[in-house]
Amino acid sequence: MRINIVAIGKLKEKFLIEAAKEYLKRMKTIATIEIIEIAECKTIEDEGEKILNRLNKNSWICLLDVFGENISSEQFAEKFSKLTLNGQSEFTFIIGGAFGVSENLRKIANFKLSLSKMTFTHQMTRIILLEQIYRAFKINRGEPYHW
Amino acid sequence: MRINIVAIGKLKEKFLIEAAKEYLKRMKTIATIEIIEIAECKTIEDEGEKILNRLNKNSWICLLDVFGENISSEQFAEKFSKLTLNGQSEFTFIIGGAFGVSENLRKIANFKLSLSKMTFTHQMTRIILLEQIYRAFKINRGEPYHW
Repeated sequence: MRINIVAIGKLKEKFLIEAAKEYLKRMKTIATIEIIEIAECKTIEDEGEKILNRLNKNSWICLLDVFGENISSEQFAEKFSKLTLNGQSEFTFIIGGAFGVSENLRKIANFKLSLSKMTFTHQMTRIILLEQIYRAFKINRGEPYHW
Repeated sequence: MRINIVAIGKLKEKFLIEAAKEYLKRMKTIATIEIIEIAECKTIEDEGEKILNRLNKNSWICLLDVFGENISSEQFAEKFSKLTLNGQSEFTFIIGGAFGVSENLRKIANFKLSLSKMTFTHQMTRIILLEQIYRAFKINRGEPYHW
């Protein structure tokens, strides 16, 4: 399985860099995960274009979007499992910048996911997403997971 | 202003400890924040009793609860601001353990807050909560906040 996380901007806080590393390490044997960082642009439309250029045609696309659907971790895991059973092997998650995401990205996304009504920093969003992907693997494998 | 965060268990991951430190440092001049860690018990009822013993009578109590309300960061900030205007000076947030929270805690809470339909680890919840409290301060002071 291949997972791409396309994100605007770099992680700046040391503790977030460490957190991301930790989750990538934990998932190393389960999936190939690539983090694609795109530099901030002047407008979300420009950011959207740059992101679009980095997407693979055959990938399932999930856009992190405050106007998206808030689903449970179990439902999130089920999405993975159903798509995989249907032959999907590449999953791309897009995390916009501090000012949101472009309409063009909303149009091409297969799913729009909202983590919360609350606004999280886009840096923190990356960690929460990595944790949810890790959790989804654990759920789908029936492995215990609490810490 | 005084803020207490009562949580079951200790932060174990280094990156989470660093994250918590960072937010506490940022809020040092705004509020007195105390983190009260309570050891895990065999049942959530026992944990609930231990937590109840640590609550101050005059504090406003917010329970982090998957069955609570998911509000926006702006609504969360408004709660702080309204309560403060009404003379409230102490706020207590309760984060249960890996297995949930007791009904007794649900009964005494002034507000039950759900961060997401997704399940976050209770350790990660602490960081997200600290970030939301920090964000609320920023919103209420009209200060810019993006990173």
